[in-house]
Amino acid sequence: MKHIVITAGGTSEAIDGVRRIGNTSTGSLAACIYEALSEHLAAHKSGAFTVHYVVSETAARPEIKENLPVTFYPVTDVKSVEAVLEQLLTGYKADYVIHAMAVSDFTKGYLAGREALAEELSETLEEALSRDRGGMSGEKLRALVRGVLERPACRLDGPSKVRSAEDLMLSLVRTPKLIEKIKQWSPGSFLVGFKLLKGVDEEALVRVAAGLSEKSGCDLVLANDMDRIGADRHEGLLLKGRRVVGSYGTKKEIAAGIAGHMLGGSDAGGETGGGQ
Amino acid sequence: MKHIVITAGGTSEAIDGVRRIGNTSTGSLAACIYEALSEHLAAHKSGAFTVHYVVSETAARPEIKENLPVTFYPVTDVKSVEAVLEQLLTGYKADYVIHAMAVSDFTKGYLAGREALAEELSETLEEALSRDRGGMSGEKLRALVRGVLERPACRLDGPSKVRSAEDLMLSLVRTPKLIEKIKQWSPGSFLVGFKLLKGVDEEALVRVAAGLSEKSGCDLVLANDMDRIGADRHEGLLLKGRRVVGSYGTKKEIAAGIAGHMLGGSDAGGETGGGQ
Repeated sequence: MKHIVITAGGTSEAIDGVRRIGNTSTGSLAACIYEALSEHLAAHKSGAFTVHYVVSETAARPEIKENLPVTFYPVTDVKSVEAVLEQLLTGYKADYVIHAMAVSDFTKGYLAGREALAEELSETLEEALSRDRGGMSGEKLRALVRGVLERPACRLDGPSKVRSAEDLMLSLVRTPKLIEKIKQWSPGSFLVGFKLLKGVDEEALVRVAAGLSEKSGCDLVLANDMDRIGADRHEGLLLKGRRVVGSYGTKKEIAAGIAGHMLGGSDAGGETGGGQ
Repeated sequence: MKHIVITAGGTSEAIDGVRRIGNTSTGSLAACIYEALSEHLAAHKSGAFTVHYVVSETAARPEIKENLPVTFYPVTDVKSVEAVLEQLLTGYKADYVIHAMAVSDFTKGYLAGREALAEELSETLEEALSRDRGGMSGEKLRALVRGVLERPACRLDGPSKVRSAEDLMLSLVRTPKLIEKIKQWSPGSFLVGFKLLKGVDEEALVRVAAGLSEKSGCDLVLANDMDRIGADRHEGLLLKGRRVVGSYGTKKEIAAGIAGHMLGGSDAGGETGGGQ
């Protein structure tokens, strides 16, 4: 039995009890890839496979095919994805990982009223100035400002709904890059990564995607650009290291290309397309 | 022909090309209300009605009933809801407005790197201190800090995807309260408002909902609490001014209660329930 882990949809991070910050990922490309894998396996009869499908609450789910059983793992935020992936990748021998999920790059650091934050900054500096009559060094000033902005005392805590009576400042801190942990958890897995940019030319897209490939140890990277994704169109380049091995125009073509290059066989497609 | 405007789902505000801030509203209560209105009209044969359904992209849509035709108006952010509502309420004589949509209280003011913001604050203050050798007044210090936090020069602009290489500060500014504009646009409309809180007792819930009723001129307000909403349960109190006129335990009951109290008739329900 071979194990395929697929991550799908977009995570979202809680800001308070009712508000969340998330992205516009729908999970439909991952669902297409599942279907393409099933079709590929049906055509090539390559033994028994099972899919572990890690999926955000709002994402589209694929229609389940008889030849490719699926277990769903519902997730919400980055922390929940990390927990499920660590468990799956250290618990099973995952032969393939298709990490199509748009994982939030940022999570909430703190939320504070903008006026309250201005007041705390001012008070902190005033106090320091009144102590240092001789004048405060630039270095000390910077350290004070940085300290307050990193973790102000006036931050609002708790899971309730924040009142909407004043303007706010939301600090956003970086989340761990889960894709960089996948090969650490499971060095033997074949890893397919995804890079989505917006409004860049093809050269830049390939360069950034090749960077992801190198940094995270991806065996394949699908590179795409928001501006070249529409209702009926989804352009994408498939990279093996720095080399473009496929160029596609729809989700279905991308999915078939990934299935072919990942599982082998002759229907990888796209090799004679443009943009290579 | 009588016109009913229903708003449904939750708005979301763009942070950059791929990230949005939104809320967890699904639009299912509004869909239930549409269905209850159709049932109420079928039972009471009260003439011809048509529904203008203002709905966010991700919200559930109701099944359309033959006796209550619907036109959908898809919206995304607060600005788009405001534009559609203004057009509808000044263009038609809207007899009823059911404003069930969870409209974002905040939209993006600016996005900036936290380090860049700390640097700009420090530089601004250092410069001012070097000019005012005699010492800076607390008032001047506050004005400088407030000015930078309100609109820093280092803010990131443009619709592209923000790089995830550094921690960020997102300023959130209040959006106009659309519910307060509804009676300004259309003083003759019967207005149903909604107040959703989290983790408050019934007394506080009624007090806040009555406040909304007074401030926005609502004819009915449905008050509910996130902590008393689950998969099969949705508790709600219906208020006319400060008076609780209905108490319900499910979406279906809430919807029937609103339809009954709004359109008249004997099936308003809930009047003998608990919590009054």
